[in-house]
Amino acid sequence: MKYIPFDEAKQTLAFILEKTGFSTADAAYLAHTFANNTLEGVESHGLNRFPRFMASVKSGDVQPTADIERISALGGLELWDAHLCAGPLVASRAMAKACHLAKTSGIAMVSVRNSSHWQRAGRYAWEAAEKNMVSILFTNTCQNLPAWGALDAQLGNNPMAIGIPRKKGAVVVDLSMSQFAYGRLEIAAQKGEKMPTAGGFDKQGRLTDDPNDILETRRVLPMGMWKGAALSLVLDMMAAGLSLGRTVHQIGNPSDGEKGLSQAYIAIHYTGLVDEAEAQTRFDDAVAALKASLPDHESSPVRYPGEKLPQIVKTHLKNGLPVHDSIWQAIIQYA
Amino acid sequence: MKYIPFDEAKQTLAFILEKTGFSTADAAYLAHTFANNTLEGVESHGLNRFPRFMASVKSGDVQPTADIERISALGGLELWDAHLCAGPLVASRAMAKACHLAKTSGIAMVSVRNSSHWQRAGRYAWEAAEKNMVSILFTNTCQNLPAWGALDAQLGNNPMAIGIPRKKGAVVVDLSMSQFAYGRLEIAAQKGEKMPTAGGFDKQGRLTDDPNDILETRRVLPMGMWKGAALSLVLDMMAAGLSLGRTVHQIGNPSDGEKGLSQAYIAIHYTGLVDEAEAQTRFDDAVAALKASLPDHESSPVRYPGEKLPQIVKTHLKNGLPVHDSIWQAIIQYA
Repeated sequence: MKYIPFDEAKQTLAFILEKTGFSTADAAYLAHTFANNTLEGVESHGLNRFPRFMASVKSGDVQPTADIERISALGGLELWDAHLCAGPLVASRAMAKACHLAKTSGIAMVSVRNSSHWQRAGRYAWEAAEKNMVSILFTNTCQNLPAWGALDAQLGNNPMAIGIPRKKGAVVVDLSMSQFAYGRLEIAAQKGEKMPTAGGFDKQGRLTDDPNDILETRRVLPMGMWKGAALSLVLDMMAAGLSLGRTVHQIGNPSDGEKGLSQAYIAIHYTGLVDEAEAQTRFDDAVAALKASLPDHESSPVRYPGEKLPQIVKTHLKNGLPVHDSIWQAIIQYA
Repeated sequence: MKYIPFDEAKQTLAFILEKTGFSTADAAYLAHTFANNTLEGVESHGLNRFPRFMASVKSGDVQPTADIERISALGGLELWDAHLCAGPLVASRAMAKACHLAKTSGIAMVSVRNSSHWQRAGRYAWEAAEKNMVSILFTNTCQNLPAWGALDAQLGNNPMAIGIPRKKGAVVVDLSMSQFAYGRLEIAAQKGEKMPTAGGFDKQGRLTDDPNDILETRRVLPMGMWKGAALSLVLDMMAAGLSLGRTVHQIGNPSDGEKGLSQAYIAIHYTGLVDEAEAQTRFDDAVAALKASLPDHESSPVRYPGEKLPQIVKTHLKNGLPVHDSIWQAIIQYA
């Protein structure tokens, strides 16, 4: 394991991205996003994903010089065609535009077709929270999740994030519709570990916590079983229908690559409707009640989503960003 | 078990409600809603709930003559105080208003404080779908769901519905943040049955499918475990913060009654942004892909949420609404 200083990681990535054809500003934002995801503890969608991102640029699934096109608008709604622009650039701009529109329309949504992998849903909810906006955003994916009662994956895990700005620290929920990510199953399998709870089905159709059995059937468990599968379906319908983009079915299975995604970004300008201090009181009350829960293990106080982030950032700023030697080698070969 | 003709059920309930102080129009809508929920197969929130609704009117938790008050507005946002008006009346009007606002603003949200139990989230998503609007709505509840890793219930199960209008049949997802409703656990316990999958924790802190053990600890499982618990938190924060209403914590535990709820109703006027036929093509493609899934049991084709509804309605219109003798007796004692 290597520990790369945050600024060094950003500079290295920005250099590579600019060399690959991204503008200086786009390269800087993308470099920041990948490094920052690792900085904030989401290593699966930080530096570890950069080689895969570079591969998608090389294959043409991501276009470094794509111009995002505004197709139509109505009140607080806008429809964009991203023309395979890099997902983090699309997401950051669409979220910012939704926040901007919401200042006059109160609530706004930008729907996007032909986007690409945004890496980490929560990042853009944090960006909206920094603008003091409530946000709801979701994307579709390739076919990687079976419907409830199905053997094959016709649904996507369709990640979603919801962000609530809070003076005492934003609350950001970032979740996909599968109980565990494939990456998580693979890591457990490599380590010879079981999942903490059932994560999918074995060949006999039984729920299992053995990652090898699940990786064999590729029958991962929707979060909340029939509930997550149902949510996955409607998120896909909204993302594709409201953007006239591709559905999960049209994006196809993972071996087709995962390009031309459909997404939606909703912002709510709550301070235009209600008194900010009064709203913050409710936000804080809900968080305080959660934190007052009796923990089932004395050593594990109940935490709200996003609570650990500042401490993780502090540690990684001090020690550097953790990255496997092989991943860092794969990155710097592009430099 | 009795089987009451749909029209007879509606007339009986409307008669009772008008006698209780509701206007003729409000009584008719409420009677329709309770009867219709049973008609559409959601018996837990249909006639079976009517005696409890009447008790909440008698106790003052629901006010038959409450005037809903519009507090503030910005663009597509409105804030209402429902002053303990009956939940189904509030929900139907707030959803209709959001749909109306969305015609000019594209996307709209009505947030409501001091509402009461709306009975069934999906009903109002169906109403929005009948207006050809996409809808997202959610409510908070009393404290009935433990946070992940917690022994006591500081969260609510905060039901949410998402509805997609479709010429071939709307898709409506209606789900709460607990894996199973308490009513479902109680029915299984009475029948001496296990739950189909783990539904909560026993006294030793182990996941179990034994409803008796779960009813003893009242430690029900959030859907998707940490994921549903996290969603529950942000739904509460949005519902209460955007309405300056009560949080789950302020609504209190179930024995306090469940009044003064906070809710949000979002409508999206998709046909104002995109071509309707093109959007319907995406909706249909996603549903067709789901239905093309290989079922794990040949006799159980994979269904989309809402698919069974027309057949259930047909059966109940023919045979009458099923209701336990004791429930029907409890209802007609008010007549």
